[in-house]
Amino acid sequence: MRDQIEARLQTLLDNCQEPSLKEAMSYSVSAGGKRLRPLLLLGACEAVSGQFSQNAVDFACALEMIHTYSLIHDDLPAMDNDDMRRGKPTSHKQFGEAMAILAGDALLNRAFETMIHACVDDPKLINAMRVIAVASGDSGMIAGQVIDMHFQHKKADGDALFNIHSLKTGALFAAAFEAGALIGEGDDSYVQSMKDVGVKIGRAFQILDDLLDVTATQETLGKPTGSDSRNEKNTYVSIHGLEAAKSDYNKISIEALATLDQLPQKTLTLRTIVQQVIDRTY
Amino acid sequence: MRDQIEARLQTLLDNCQEPSLKEAMSYSVSAGGKRLRPLLLLGACEAVSGQFSQNAVDFACALEMIHTYSLIHDDLPAMDNDDMRRGKPTSHKQFGEAMAILAGDALLNRAFETMIHACVDDPKLINAMRVIAVASGDSGMIAGQVIDMHFQHKKADGDALFNIHSLKTGALFAAAFEAGALIGEGDDSYVQSMKDVGVKIGRAFQILDDLLDVTATQETLGKPTGSDSRNEKNTYVSIHGLEAAKSDYNKISIEALATLDQLPQKTLTLRTIVQQVIDRTY
Repeated sequence: MRDQIEARLQTLLDNCQEPSLKEAMSYSVSAGGKRLRPLLLLGACEAVSGQFSQNAVDFACALEMIHTYSLIHDDLPAMDNDDMRRGKPTSHKQFGEAMAILAGDALLNRAFETMIHACVDDPKLINAMRVIAVASGDSGMIAGQVIDMHFQHKKADGDALFNIHSLKTGALFAAAFEAGALIGEGDDSYVQSMKDVGVKIGRAFQILDDLLDVTATQETLGKPTGSDSRNEKNTYVSIHGLEAAKSDYNKISIEALATLDQLPQKTLTLRTIVQQVIDRTY
Repeated sequence: MRDQIEARLQTLLDNCQEPSLKEAMSYSVSAGGKRLRPLLLLGACEAVSGQFSQNAVDFACALEMIHTYSLIHDDLPAMDNDDMRRGKPTSHKQFGEAMAILAGDALLNRAFETMIHACVDDPKLINAMRVIAVASGDSGMIAGQVIDMHFQHKKADGDALFNIHSLKTGALFAAAFEAGALIGEGDDSYVQSMKDVGVKIGRAFQILDDLLDVTATQETLGKPTGSDSRNEKNTYVSIHGLEAAKSDYNKISIEALATLDQLPQKTLTLRTIVQQVIDRTY
């Protein structure tokens, strides 16, 4: 599954005709991402229908491109001003700010181009594209980034942090499950259950992210640890404390797996991927 | 036609739930753009089919959002570093760089969301969305911006400038005509002819843009004139000279109108809009 995502991402980016733009787009896409969102999308699709098509792989790649563009723009000096990502210089450090902005724009646009081509082939996929577009936009991920920005150097409460995490991280995770189930042609209630699992996995993912910034080593994480605390960032740990973060993380993870295990179809591969998300150490 | 575009743009942006993001998105969209691309799309649609639907208006608005996002990102300090646009402070001057980046991202995403919603209603529109996505992406507008950037402080020749203009400006103009004709359900040869007109109008538009930077007053243009020359920008005037620019501009405009006049359907409204593009003084 992962090999198919990697190969297809490569092919899709090879289509870019402008060499310097292709280099910048590929640099960030191939920077060692864990491909969690595309794997979850394909896993959800396979859980419903027992298989996934080439079009499903294209949707998975589109989701990864959207995630990657958001990281490139998030790392910019005007935003989080991060020099390192996954053990490599960030896009603007490597190619300059102008190219980083354009490479991010191009990845977002290319994500839609990729999904649109799949929809030209199979118009039934439009609804899955709609789900991803809403999740990545101004009522999803981008809204989360804006609200997160408003809380820079300002203490958030639990509700505000929940809102930021739900939008900034949760929306794309939920979309991976929902779009995957839609591509697999699950019925409404199945798609809704999958989305519910996605929301929980998104929450667990974000709490773990905040935990790892405190507990992991720089070597495994690929970037300096403790940066959240140095930047006075609002995190699950800074607001709820380390112990509550750990126990909430365990509780939500168990709930997500339980919801998944209640679903009738073949969720074995999806369960393995979810377990990977939950057990990650970097 | 223009009133419908303005009203619909307003409604679409009012849907944004995050107040500060909505403000930044609306600020640039309502900054007094001439709405040339959406007008041309609707004009092309009406020329083919004698009418345009609400879905066509949504496509027109999407095109304007893509154009607006490209201006916001183009004005950023890391890119052209422009303080004024259409007589008002640019987005990053008004809201800061981080918000300008996110407002641009959100407009691009919203453009696709808007077209996707129209396609959920009428899947026949997917092909028009594909045309716009390709034109705005890494083989269209964004490629043009990247190549333009490589020629900053470096003299381009006529061919290089032609390539930059075709991609950076021409692609969206051609897409306005092609997508409009597709939405109006024109046959293949009609769509191709419309696209040809669009390519020429795009060229004429860009030459006029370069001419106006030399010949217009700051008051009518809404931004300092002569900025291209001060920034040592490659323009049609700097490369071919003022007289050649004027005469090529006239030649291409006449060609475009002639191609348009050869088309069988009712192109009267479209002709008026094209004339507006050609005769503009700012």
